[in-house]
Amino acid sequence: MSVTLDSNQWNLVYNIFSFGLISMLACTVYTLVSQSRVLPKYRNALVMSSMVTFIAGYHYWRIFNSFNEATTAGSFEVNVSGANGAFNEAYRYVDWLLTVPLLLVEVIAVLALAKELSKSLIMRLVPASAAMIALGYPGEISDVRGTQILFGVLSTLPFLYILYVLFVELTKSLERQPAGVADTVKRLRLLLIATWGVYPISYILGMQGDPTASSFVGVQVGYTIADILAKCVFGLTILKIARMKSHAEGMAADH
Amino acid sequence: MSVTLDSNQWNLVYNIFSFGLISMLACTVYTLVSQSRVLPKYRNALVMSSMVTFIAGYHYWRIFNSFNEATTAGSFEVNVSGANGAFNEAYRYVDWLLTVPLLLVEVIAVLALAKELSKSLIMRLVPASAAMIALGYPGEISDVRGTQILFGVLSTLPFLYILYVLFVELTKSLERQPAGVADTVKRLRLLLIATWGVYPISYILGMQGDPTASSFVGVQVGYTIADILAKCVFGLTILKIARMKSHAEGMAADH
Repeated sequence: MSVTLDSNQWNLVYNIFSFGLISMLACTVYTLVSQSRVLPKYRNALVMSSMVTFIAGYHYWRIFNSFNEATTAGSFEVNVSGANGAFNEAYRYVDWLLTVPLLLVEVIAVLALAKELSKSLIMRLVPASAAMIALGYPGEISDVRGTQILFGVLSTLPFLYILYVLFVELTKSLERQPAGVADTVKRLRLLLIATWGVYPISYILGMQGDPTASSFVGVQVGYTIADILAKCVFGLTILKIARMKSHAEGMAADH
Repeated sequence: MSVTLDSNQWNLVYNIFSFGLISMLACTVYTLVSQSRVLPKYRNALVMSSMVTFIAGYHYWRIFNSFNEATTAGSFEVNVSGANGAFNEAYRYVDWLLTVPLLLVEVIAVLALAKELSKSLIMRLVPASAAMIALGYPGEISDVRGTQILFGVLSTLPFLYILYVLFVELTKSLERQPAGVADTVKRLRLLLIATWGVYPISYILGMQGDPTASSFVGVQVGYTIADILAKCVFGLTILKIARMKSHAEGMAADH
């Protein structure tokens, strides 16, 4: 099955994939070299962020190539499914399976909570997020409406659980954070909800029968912007929190 | 000889190779940047782990490309042997020949045993593991049942010797390790047995005459999951042991 884009649509998708790719790689380098700007206890959170954008950079490189290879030479017709050489949407699921648990670990790591509490939060958030991604995939590749709805709903359950842990359980431990940190963590949480909200919207868009040129472009542009916000902007916010906490704990302000 | 997969099988193999590739590379970066989080005496064990996942990442990149190139354009028919351009299973043997001895050296290095004991263990584990891999290869490429059984058995002998060294000889020296370390090493040993157990199962599967679509998919998915556990999860466990020992030996807890 293929969709035929117009020249502007095809170029928009092509260029936004390239934009996603270099944003992820630049963010990876930035967080890697910023290690020494935070206290050692916060460096692991920063490395997690570097890993997330590194893994996403790899996948955008693959997605970019896959989009090119799925386009019939000399046209803007993109093979989107069913044949060898079709655009491989599954790269996104492989990416999320690795990066979404890491993003949640990042948040917990940067808060430097008591060891037992950290462990308990991570042991619940990581399996919940992996279940959320893994349950979405059978719905994404299915053509059957009932299967799509079933896995859409199943995947929403762990998502709601993650929201509960982040908005109810985590809130209790924000009181003991230095001034400004609690507010930044709250903004980070909103960023996470706002960007993760794009994924179910794209999923529902994908359920409206065969993709059209505009639904294909909408889904790819939406995913890419959401990924940049959820990974790069998210990672830079983690760096900001790590620096606020490092300064509150005595690191020189000009460091 | 070729096997014809269906669209879902082909995509599963394709995506799991990509997943293996980026898991190895991300793990390499993570263990490289975590060097400063352990005492200098444990850094060599960590570098070994980075080397293992780096070598495996290279081979998954080759395996991923080989799988693509062995697929007839516009179909899901994969050329699996006998012709130039066939899927090159030998990458796995080259990989194991380098990485399996390194994995065993990693375990010994992170324990920081007495110098004489370390040397004695390494001098026995490294040749035994190289012999295990090298003896498996003639069986893997042979089509003759007798040859396959002969080299399967020959390859099992050094494997049993490795088990003896790890489970009998190494156990004596675990008593002197800090609290928690002995248990983690025991879990690491079980991880090693559980994942290495996949390789003989795949070998025996490969002996059941010409590969079918499902045996090909089973073997490739099995090997890839085993490799991720035996290299990435293994390496992260080595990092955990190195951190436990570094803290037991006086490194600040928040470092």
